[in-house]
Amino acid sequence: MKKFMPIFGWARGYDRRVFASDLLAGIVVTIMLIPQSLAYALLAGLPPEMGLYASILPLVAYALFGTSRTLSVGPVAVASLMTASAIGRIAEPGSLGYIEAATLLALMSGLFLLVMGILRMGFLANFLSHPVIAGFITASGIIIAFSQLKHLLGVSASGENLLHLIASLGGQLNTANPSTLMIALPTLVFLFWVRSGLKPLLVRTGLSDHAAGMLSKTGPVLGVIATSAFAFSFDLGAKGVALVGQVPVGLPTLALPALAHPAWKELWIAAIFISIIGFVESVSVGHTLAAKRRQKILPDQELIGLGAANISSAVSGGYPVTGGFARSMVNFDAGAVTPAAGIFTAAGIAAAAVFFTPYLAYLPQATLAATIIVAVLSLVDFSILKKTWQYARSDFVAVAATLAITLMFGVETGVACGVLTSLGLHLYKTSRPHLAIVGEVPGTEHFRNIKRHQVITYDDILSLRVDESLYFANASYFEDSLYSLLETRPDVKHVVLLCTAVNEIDLSALEVLESINARLRESGMQLHLSEVKGPVMDMLEKTHFLAQLGGQVFLSQHQAIESIRAMAERGPRNAPQTIDGSAPSHTRPVK
Amino acid sequence: MKKFMPIFGWARGYDRRVFASDLLAGIVVTIMLIPQSLAYALLAGLPPEMGLYASILPLVAYALFGTSRTLSVGPVAVASLMTASAIGRIAEPGSLGYIEAATLLALMSGLFLLVMGILRMGFLANFLSHPVIAGFITASGIIIAFSQLKHLLGVSASGENLLHLIASLGGQLNTANPSTLMIALPTLVFLFWVRSGLKPLLVRTGLSDHAAGMLSKTGPVLGVIATSAFAFSFDLGAKGVALVGQVPVGLPTLALPALAHPAWKELWIAAIFISIIGFVESVSVGHTLAAKRRQKILPDQELIGLGAANISSAVSGGYPVTGGFARSMVNFDAGAVTPAAGIFTAAGIAAAAVFFTPYLAYLPQATLAATIIVAVLSLVDFSILKKTWQYARSDFVAVAATLAITLMFGVETGVACGVLTSLGLHLYKTSRPHLAIVGEVPGTEHFRNIKRHQVITYDDILSLRVDESLYFANASYFEDSLYSLLETRPDVKHVVLLCTAVNEIDLSALEVLESINARLRESGMQLHLSEVKGPVMDMLEKTHFLAQLGGQVFLSQHQAIESIRAMAERGPRNAPQTIDGSAPSHTRPVK
Repeated sequence: MKKFMPIFGWARGYDRRVFASDLLAGIVVTIMLIPQSLAYALLAGLPPEMGLYASILPLVAYALFGTSRTLSVGPVAVASLMTASAIGRIAEPGSLGYIEAATLLALMSGLFLLVMGILRMGFLANFLSHPVIAGFITASGIIIAFSQLKHLLGVSASGENLLHLIASLGGQLNTANPSTLMIALPTLVFLFWVRSGLKPLLVRTGLSDHAAGMLSKTGPVLGVIATSAFAFSFDLGAKGVALVGQVPVGLPTLALPALAHPAWKELWIAAIFISIIGFVESVSVGHTLAAKRRQKILPDQELIGLGAANISSAVSGGYPVTGGFARSMVNFDAGAVTPAAGIFTAAGIAAAAVFFTPYLAYLPQATLAATIIVAVLSLVDFSILKKTWQYARSDFVAVAATLAITLMFGVETGVACGVLTSLGLHLYKTSRPHLAIVGEVPGTEHFRNIKRHQVITYDDILSLRVDESLYFANASYFEDSLYSLLETRPDVKHVVLLCTAVNEIDLSALEVLESINARLRESGMQLHLSEVKGPVMDMLEKTHFLAQLGGQVFLSQHQAIESIRAMAERGPRNAPQTIDGSAPSHTRPVK
Repeated sequence: MKKFMPIFGWARGYDRRVFASDLLAGIVVTIMLIPQSLAYALLAGLPPEMGLYASILPLVAYALFGTSRTLSVGPVAVASLMTASAIGRIAEPGSLGYIEAATLLALMSGLFLLVMGILRMGFLANFLSHPVIAGFITASGIIIAFSQLKHLLGVSASGENLLHLIASLGGQLNTANPSTLMIALPTLVFLFWVRSGLKPLLVRTGLSDHAAGMLSKTGPVLGVIATSAFAFSFDLGAKGVALVGQVPVGLPTLALPALAHPAWKELWIAAIFISIIGFVESVSVGHTLAAKRRQKILPDQELIGLGAANISSAVSGGYPVTGGFARSMVNFDAGAVTPAAGIFTAAGIAAAAVFFTPYLAYLPQATLAATIIVAVLSLVDFSILKKTWQYARSDFVAVAATLAITLMFGVETGVACGVLTSLGLHLYKTSRPHLAIVGEVPGTEHFRNIKRHQVITYDDILSLRVDESLYFANASYFEDSLYSLLETRPDVKHVVLLCTAVNEIDLSALEVLESINARLRESGMQLHLSEVKGPVMDMLEKTHFLAQLGGQVFLSQHQAIESIRAMAERGPRNAPQTIDGSAPSHTRPVK
């Protein structure tokens, strides 16, 4: 029971001290979440109340089923962008079909996450490498910021990728609304200042560092109040400034999404992408927070928690949700101890939906757009390009490809190409394994690359370390490389493969080894193996390979060399050909 | 020059003895190739002369550019089936558009092979594993055999996969033509007998084993002559038996294929599949033959050779060709020494096109169908299922998936799914690496799995061997596994990662190692690395990881343990915590 509903784990020890902590965190997150929820709904092209609805039941569902103590679930920037991009293809923004498609998408995403969790498929998220995620998030941040410029300018523009957005905006610049700009620019400046300037100011008034940090997170609400009051006082609506307008008062009504919606066939790929990206984002935040308090999250149970959250969102008029980075950090810093903080936040947002929605009518959309821009620009981080360039070209290629393709062709194509690029590069690397000729480090039983270390070698023994599992993609390459090496070493009578890095030999590779063994035997050479791992040996023992092997399988490379040299000195016995008992031929210099 | 046209390599030492050998092989292959060329054209749904045309210029082109001395190029069963399947989607068999599409496909395939060769992309073929090829070839053999049954029965049926073929045939059984069956069944029995019974008979007449073997390969020609004579004598054409009919006499006219053909957009995927499958088939035959005479083939130059062959086929009214297994074996066994044998074969087929085509008018199609069935049934080999089941489940899954999907959905889908399955299984395995806790084998400096060997371990040192490169797909799994291991080992103060199998640490994995290092350090433990390979160490040295590392990097695991134990006995110096200098705690039994 505790396994499927982690609430039974933490609810037992719940006391007044924890309650107070959670309540404070719940209040802070509520104040932060109100403008964010409205803004992300705008980003998704949905009515603002859907942002609030997506921040009530989903938080409760996650609190019941999720394993992170402090993750805060709700609408997030990237999932909102992906929602807009997916449903924008099949319905007109603002239409009933569009809204229905958004709740349907949440349901499909929830069911997909749930099934993945039940099948314990959380490991699939590991195939999204860090460079791909970093490239994708940065590109998404840029696209989102550009997509909101139209609200600051008071024009209409659209586009799923950067090129379309810029072209669309460029054609509209001359129709920009001066009143909208007049309210948008000061708000943007204020919100940027809040991020860095408000906290020091509060500290100077005598607040503690922590309290000032918390209070500064509620800054955006000041922007909402001030711009709403301004718009009301000067009747900006009549001057062409887009306002939020009438928002339904009260809690969402519970209802199943339109399952018969004709769009579900077109939405399922988008649902999978949103689910996986949301899951990866959420799990990475969850891991980070859990590590700070020596807690653990269980990815497969997280799938169930996020699945439940999305299904709750769907039945309560919301849209796809996931764990957000910024709000989870605030929740954590504000002192949240258990998921009860999330339940308090849900209660806070519910109260807002009931009591504050009438006041949203005069809120300018430009204020929400400014909130989004300030939030997403913190996602944009090009340092990963420099970091990967310095560390590994393949990681750099993965980042650059994901970044460029996401900007040019949109989020789904970007992620898909990023994953394929990183997997392709990995497979390419393993298809051309590094091979090192090794010799014994003097005074040890340890063997190292002759090009890097001063080691002892013998002319009649080729000690070859294969730096990769042998499988179909590299078996031929390995065979060709070995023969090329032997062509330049006519004195070799024994080839010893040091198998420390060979974690697998598949059937294709086994056949190549059989052919190598036969060819060496015909040429009067012996093939030996050393340091073969248990699991690989288990497999070889099921075949005839060991019986046909010209040489032997040695426990260690040291024993292989000792034994081959001893045999050479005794004269041939097992070996079909004579071996000259030459002394160590040379000690190679370090390159 | 020799590199791009290998003919300059072998033509220099050409003498009368080699000429005699090559000429004999050329004659034997010609006699074998005449019925095969006609039959494979029938299989591709093309007029019989196209099979002959595809066996003239392509052989000359391959002789000039290919690297195999004895490979015999021409129409083959699988490529013919794939051609039929690709162009059958866009044109009616027998129509002018169908024929034009076939030559266009040869041109596209030729250009693709040529470009791959120039870009040296031959390595891509390595991603087709042996199980995938075996499953695909067996399934193709079954589909081809079923596709020819209609000719034996004298009915019309069609279908790209087994299910369609069986359904289509089933509906036609009642319309079977008795005269066709009367000629088809004896021919089929005769051809099967020729494969196994003719050679022993010839040996008994006093022929040498080799001569009998060669002569028996010409058996199918007897079937062609006998059934043609029979059809002529009894006027079977009037009794509803499908005959080959009028075949144009003479050599093909040279002409560029219809480049403006509207179908090229629909053909390019098929062209890629045919090229890659043909290349893999050809290279594997080429490797096998070259190995027998200690020769070498160069896969990238083979791409150029096959590309040239297909382009020649396209401009001389042929269709896609590649190196065939059966005819290359016959060529080799008949004594071919150089590619000149292929040129003699081409001359032989050209002579046949000029002088023998009038006699083909009465040849029953059923004879050709029987030729195909007998040829392809030798491709069908289910033993790979048993072999892979015994050796490795992942190889079995790859074979079974390729076999089943090819039978059910056709050749292209089958190969694509097979490749994706085998790559997916490989990635899945590497995403869950084997981790072994190791200890020192007494009396050596060698470390082995505590579960398999009697080894020395210490309670305060966890020696962990990671049996895989660390990369994005397995970094989290490794992290979780390590923490789980540590939970059950509270006395551990030192974690030594034995990195013999770690061929790469990508950025995602580096970040995981940094987080592990930080967490162990916070818990009063030290992370050490040992036996880090040169290329991996080069990468780590570019980062801050080594500076932050709580422990050290040791040359060998033996030195790591010695050094940590020495430090423990001296008391803490580098280490932030005390270590009790306990004696070896236990020697583990072999499991």
